[in-house]
Amino acid sequence: MAQKHLSSGDSINILPATNAGTTGTAGNIPAQALFKDAQLEVMRLYLPAAKHIAAHQVDGPITIFCIEGQVEIQTDHASKILHTGDLMYLAASASHALTAIDDSSLLVTIALQGSAHHANA
Amino acid sequence: MAQKHLSSGDSINILPATNAGTTGTAGNIPAQALFKDAQLEVMRLYLPAAKHIAAHQVDGPITIFCIEGQVEIQTDHASKILHTGDLMYLAASASHALTAIDDSSLLVTIALQGSAHHANA
Repeated sequence: MAQKHLSSGDSINILPATNAGTTGTAGNIPAQALFKDAQLEVMRLYLPAAKHIAAHQVDGPITIFCIEGQVEIQTDHASKILHTGDLMYLAASASHALTAIDDSSLLVTIALQGSAHHANA
Repeated sequence: MAQKHLSSGDSINILPATNAGTTGTAGNIPAQALFKDAQLEVMRLYLPAAKHIAAHQVDGPITIFCIEGQVEIQTDHASKILHTGDLMYLAASASHALTAIDDSSLLVTIALQGSAHHANA
């Protein structure tokens, strides 16, 4: 609740704290919600090496961008390692588990179901 | 049309071609659609220094991530410079123009209106 979320037109540097500037730096907080509106949610996750997140799924499509480190992503069909700079796309409801191989930071973008927000549409 | 779009579970390295590996590299193509589904669209833009994109708006909220370079973003209310590693959020229908200060690469993520895809919902 103490986190400041981005308003439209705001920006934040998402690079690792050791590389980024001293203002507006996300830092290595375990999970930081950057913003959430009716259609789009973006968060930054820091996973120390060996951290595992069990298989789960979300209603909307997502992207996972590896800011730093290496993370193994296990889907129903395959396992893939994301390295720094890699962007993965997962369709809505695609099950995925994560295991950090190194200390890693991820940018996770989720498209939310907008239908609940269509008043009388 | 010759571009291979990501399927669910696929990944691509979006770092600049000079930094990235030799496989799955986005490279400095002016505009590359990475994928598009009913709710989410992601593209990579390369803007050489001084390139200007006139003010425009999109129906859904977007994020602009500065992969490399410096880009000035002009909204109705303000002007802000994105540096490498900066992520900007723009609400749906927020007008924005772009001017590259240096040779720059951007990752643009757009949440699409899903309502047209709700069959009989």
